[in-house]
Amino acid sequence: MNRYDELHGFLIDLDGTVWKGAHIVAGAAETIRTLKEDGKRVLGLSNRGTHSRKGISHFLKEHGIDLPPEDLILSSYVAADFLASRYKKQKVWVLGEEGLVEELKENGVPIADHPKEAKWLVVSLHTKLGYEDLNHAFQAVTHGARIIATNKDKTYPGPSGLSIDVAGMLGAIEASTGARADIIVGKPSHYMFDKAMLKIGCEARETIIIGDSLTSDIAMGELFSISTGLVLTGNTTLKMTEDSIYKPDFVMDSIRDVRQKLQLMKGLNPLKPRK
Amino acid sequence: MNRYDELHGFLIDLDGTVWKGAHIVAGAAETIRTLKEDGKRVLGLSNRGTHSRKGISHFLKEHGIDLPPEDLILSSYVAADFLASRYKKQKVWVLGEEGLVEELKENGVPIADHPKEAKWLVVSLHTKLGYEDLNHAFQAVTHGARIIATNKDKTYPGPSGLSIDVAGMLGAIEASTGARADIIVGKPSHYMFDKAMLKIGCEARETIIIGDSLTSDIAMGELFSISTGLVLTGNTTLKMTEDSIYKPDFVMDSIRDVRQKLQLMKGLNPLKPRK
Repeated sequence: MNRYDELHGFLIDLDGTVWKGAHIVAGAAETIRTLKEDGKRVLGLSNRGTHSRKGISHFLKEHGIDLPPEDLILSSYVAADFLASRYKKQKVWVLGEEGLVEELKENGVPIADHPKEAKWLVVSLHTKLGYEDLNHAFQAVTHGARIIATNKDKTYPGPSGLSIDVAGMLGAIEASTGARADIIVGKPSHYMFDKAMLKIGCEARETIIIGDSLTSDIAMGELFSISTGLVLTGNTTLKMTEDSIYKPDFVMDSIRDVRQKLQLMKGLNPLKPRK
Repeated sequence: MNRYDELHGFLIDLDGTVWKGAHIVAGAAETIRTLKEDGKRVLGLSNRGTHSRKGISHFLKEHGIDLPPEDLILSSYVAADFLASRYKKQKVWVLGEEGLVEELKENGVPIADHPKEAKWLVVSLHTKLGYEDLNHAFQAVTHGARIIATNKDKTYPGPSGLSIDVAGMLGAIEASTGARADIIVGKPSHYMFDKAMLKIGCEARETIIIGDSLTSDIAMGELFSISTGLVLTGNTTLKMTEDSIYKPDFVMDSIRDVRQKLQLMKGLNPLKPRK
């Protein structure tokens, strides 16, 4: 049995793996289609907390990729689901974009009318923020709101080059309030992993994560003992992989190669425990 | 000889001591006038890096207080003077307000046209910032600019209550870049103190600082062994003074009382070293 036949669950990172900027990675749509035709379960994962699952699903559909909202595990959704399931009636204040608010509402999380009445501050990337947005978030926390962040990435590849990401927004609030984020839901956290595994419905040993980030995708695979494949279509080079403490099971130029690569790999059957 | 007669230099904090919000503290104008008539040297000190000395001098003049720009030691000015005197030709990028840019230009500090060409990022409170302002500052630092901050106050009393201050702006840049501020010029730093002592032209033992902040005004007095008087017109209560590691030499309700208080105090002559 080859490795491909052993795997049933494919967790696929989106940003840098399926798309880059506004463009779909060449062959990504075809690959996802083939995986599904082969009977694999495919979920899209992303740390980006700026969009709702509906919004991302719609964008993918426009580019020939069929991943319904329920097959997308976005940090916006994981944050919303966490709050909705454990802190049902606690109002939140949002330092983030419209898509995050949409996802929170979709999951029934009540949005506060004033920062001072919020029990939680939800922080994500906010590319349209102004001083008052920072100040409202600050006021929510100084009045007792706990902090939940979609992720803590420092940078993302923006239209004008590498740009300040959630770590900046979070840093502003932490440094001025002395508070620290209680929860960060994005990869490689167990919040993201657990939600993905619940949805994917197969065993960890039958599951692989494919992504472009050593510190979120490959790290999550290592932490939770699932297979890992690194693509070089994002921000990671082969050299960075050599220097990193995180080692993917294999490296490929693009997600396009994943099926062929795995078919050429010997199966782990009987599955060995990972180091 | 009483304590008042021994003192020749008065360093007077502005925000919370001379004014509060948009209002001059009752009696502040008269007190400053009397001190000057008695032959004392009076300087105004402030950690606020949002305004130029000209702007503040103009504002004070409108309210009957005569402190020319050269008798104002603002963190905007101390930052500008530091850069102009030690890094003459190094271009800077500014994350801050118009008054800071004005003060930098006034002192001949060259402003960069693009974040990437800046050798320094000057950070201060910026109540009109947008995401792109944060992002430009981030890009300056990721391209090698060092960080100089006017101060690192976490909060200031804004029009809508306690508001996020420089620590927030600085925290955003530090958390996203991994860099740390090289220099923070505001009280209680020696940058501020040295500049004030150069201007005031008398000995430390003949100098007093009067202010409303334990951690900037009273701390600076303790660090550099000058006399200290705390006013209760700002953010500090008598209770906070009891709990603080910083102990002023004396406490008064308002700057209005400073002359009378000091006249009732025994002189230190011959001046003893401070503990």
